[in-house]
Amino acid sequence: MAKPHALLVFSRHGESEWNVANKFTGWVDVDLSEKGVGEAKAAGELIKQEGLKFDVCHTSYLKRAIKTCNLALESADQLYAPVSKTWRLNERMYGGLTGLDKKETVVKHGAEQVQIWRRSFDLPPPEIDEASPFHPKLEAKYADLDPKDIPKTESLKTVIERVMPYWEGTIMPDLKAGKTVFVAAHGNSIRAIVKYIEGIPDDVIPGLEIPTGTPLVYALDADLKPIACDQAVAPLKYGRYLGDAEKIKAAAEAVKNQTKVG
Amino acid sequence: MAKPHALLVFSRHGESEWNVANKFTGWVDVDLSEKGVGEAKAAGELIKQEGLKFDVCHTSYLKRAIKTCNLALESADQLYAPVSKTWRLNERMYGGLTGLDKKETVVKHGAEQVQIWRRSFDLPPPEIDEASPFHPKLEAKYADLDPKDIPKTESLKTVIERVMPYWEGTIMPDLKAGKTVFVAAHGNSIRAIVKYIEGIPDDVIPGLEIPTGTPLVYALDADLKPIACDQAVAPLKYGRYLGDAEKIKAAAEAVKNQTKVG
Repeated sequence: MAKPHALLVFSRHGESEWNVANKFTGWVDVDLSEKGVGEAKAAGELIKQEGLKFDVCHTSYLKRAIKTCNLALESADQLYAPVSKTWRLNERMYGGLTGLDKKETVVKHGAEQVQIWRRSFDLPPPEIDEASPFHPKLEAKYADLDPKDIPKTESLKTVIERVMPYWEGTIMPDLKAGKTVFVAAHGNSIRAIVKYIEGIPDDVIPGLEIPTGTPLVYALDADLKPIACDQAVAPLKYGRYLGDAEKIKAAAEAVKNQTKVG
Repeated sequence: MAKPHALLVFSRHGESEWNVANKFTGWVDVDLSEKGVGEAKAAGELIKQEGLKFDVCHTSYLKRAIKTCNLALESADQLYAPVSKTWRLNERMYGGLTGLDKKETVVKHGAEQVQIWRRSFDLPPPEIDEASPFHPKLEAKYADLDPKDIPKTESLKTVIERVMPYWEGTIMPDLKAGKTVFVAAHGNSIRAIVKYIEGIPDDVIPGLEIPTGTPLVYALDADLKPIACDQAVAPLKYGRYLGDAEKIKAAAEAVKNQTKVG
């Protein structure tokens, strides 16, 4: 393998309290579950074992990602590394589905419709009700945001549109400078960047399951083209997960099963 | 009271594992004790009760301060607030005393000498041995530092000299812009800034005991002059601790008693 110019490492946050409750979470600021805390620490252990040293870290405005970042850094003995937080790396905003139990939603709207909302590239769920207790406008953390930037619902396509300015304006310059960059974020904000790096088509990216708390490493050349990796698991061609291969596969399957009505 | 232009809030880190072991810690990156974790969370609760909303936070390169910052922000529901980390807010580097038990040091060097090293303004302890396992040059976090910036020992005077460029270059501009700023740091790096703000003389500042995990709030005018506060406890004239007054006094006394040979 050519010597990489820069390294980009993702970690999807560990299990949250609403993952346990099987609810559509999106921008709701729920905490990690105890298991999620353990997953974040385990991600840090893998980062340490791999000998990765982060020059800079990025995370979202949501505590499940921020705590994953902090806990992983602590386990990796790198709590001093700089961390930037941005709403642009938030999870997809699930609009009117926010706060609903996933299985109830399936019973109400039908499995097919829910699968379309969850897995289509560009079809968003209905907008969030202006009176919803989960509306982001109620939260202090978004008070300085231009109200037009606060989404009422999002598809993966519109997630990509709000992630890209941060990717291009903040993360890419660090990678161009040859840094090792950590991104602790969410399923859909990570999909947005992975789609860009890997060139994954619109109809394939929604099905990409990224296991929680499992570091995903990209080696990039000086033009920020990813360097091919033998150990990449399809549909990835370049990204390599750290940790036990069987566990990674099982974790991805577990995410897929969340909307199956038992 | 005149309406403040900006607010500056300090929190000294909670109890560390080496506070418990009664050792000179300085730049050694020891963790918070369980009690220290509780103190950090309690500081965050007080910040929340006071209605403080941080625009920006600063902490050191040492995990006991970083974790105090993160835990306090979490308790205050402000984990999304931006945090900058800098070696310039580190604790005083205790040179050759680093890693020694405080009471043993008293037995070895005499209480008077230890008191001079701990509490004089400008007399540093002997330099750290180049072979010491606690030498900062061994730590990855200082790898990018100019070696001449890594202290071999420090007095409070030299702590002030390395804190001031960060205060003037980074914290003051945010305060001039009217922001609410949080500094989660250490006894001596906080003394450095408090001395500047309060105009405390050289011979008084070493005796200022700052209780752990207790937010200390300064209201500043547009020229960054502190606004006088009725509730300030001498020698402070402007700074106000949040929380129970008796507990604050007792906590300061407990810090003082650490080098008393029982």
